[in-house]
Amino acid sequence: MPDIYWEDFVQGDVKTFGSHEVTAEEITSFAREFDPQPMHLDPAAGAASMLGGLAASGWHSCAIIMRLICDGFLLRAAGMGSPGVQETKWLEPVRPGDVLTLRRTVLESRSSKSRPDMGLVTFRFELLKDKKTVAVDQTVVIMFARRNPGARLA
Amino acid sequence: MPDIYWEDFVQGDVKTFGSHEVTAEEITSFAREFDPQPMHLDPAAGAASMLGGLAASGWHSCAIIMRLICDGFLLRAAGMGSPGVQETKWLEPVRPGDVLTLRRTVLESRSSKSRPDMGLVTFRFELLKDKKTVAVDQTVVIMFARRNPGARLA
Repeated sequence: MPDIYWEDFVQGDVKTFGSHEVTAEEITSFAREFDPQPMHLDPAAGAASMLGGLAASGWHSCAIIMRLICDGFLLRAAGMGSPGVQETKWLEPVRPGDVLTLRRTVLESRSSKSRPDMGLVTFRFELLKDKKTVAVDQTVVIMFARRNPGARLA
Repeated sequence: MPDIYWEDFVQGDVKTFGSHEVTAEEITSFAREFDPQPMHLDPAAGAASMLGGLAASGWHSCAIIMRLICDGFLLRAAGMGSPGVQETKWLEPVRPGDVLTLRRTVLESRSSKSRPDMGLVTFRFELLKDKKTVAVDQTVVIMFARRNPGARLA
């Protein structure tokens, strides 16, 4: 049973989750299946590209964010899916050896007008390399069940 | 050598690319690695969720879009990476047996002020199920080398 509900996300709250060390094998494995551009497959091609070395597909970085979200809090939460992503900025390459963490900021929380059992939370997710450099900056809306459906908020 | 350059993307142009039939195995395989929410792993959990049955992670759908982009035109193009994604809307679940195609619309094309060898193209990518239902609607900017760097346009 979930123990995190819509009410538990407080606007302005910032937390950091997880740790994932990237390997060359996972970068090339993802790229072979989904994004076979040479700079994601081969170190020499990466070095010759604007990425300056082998680097993960931007979609691989997004998938790693999702895994950090799942392990960090979503699998324990009463999640009800997501309508989509407002924006994703790929700011820095993700490379073999980078240790990634997720910084989550609650940008906005609002109840649903049409569904009193549900609320929507707008998150900023930043994928950090070595806990300092922001590699990906993303704004996502996720829906959650309310612990107290339809309760009036002050 | 690439045979598609920035000049080849004409505002308003609409083309459809590729064909990919989704399997239950690839849905659960992606989910185990990146998005292990029950509705992406198990048909019964999917049926009990807002998705109404086993359905792909939204990030899996994005990764499939990227593969269709690569195979459709990007691997033949003088691509120079992407700063990010303006918006992604997950509109309909992607399920086993869905045959996916990519509809690409050139929304905008502009030269780079700072780099005369480069241009930026804003695309709308729609992931279609059975060539009609839009499952994912996405707006992405991709940078391309210019065939005629710095040439003045009328």
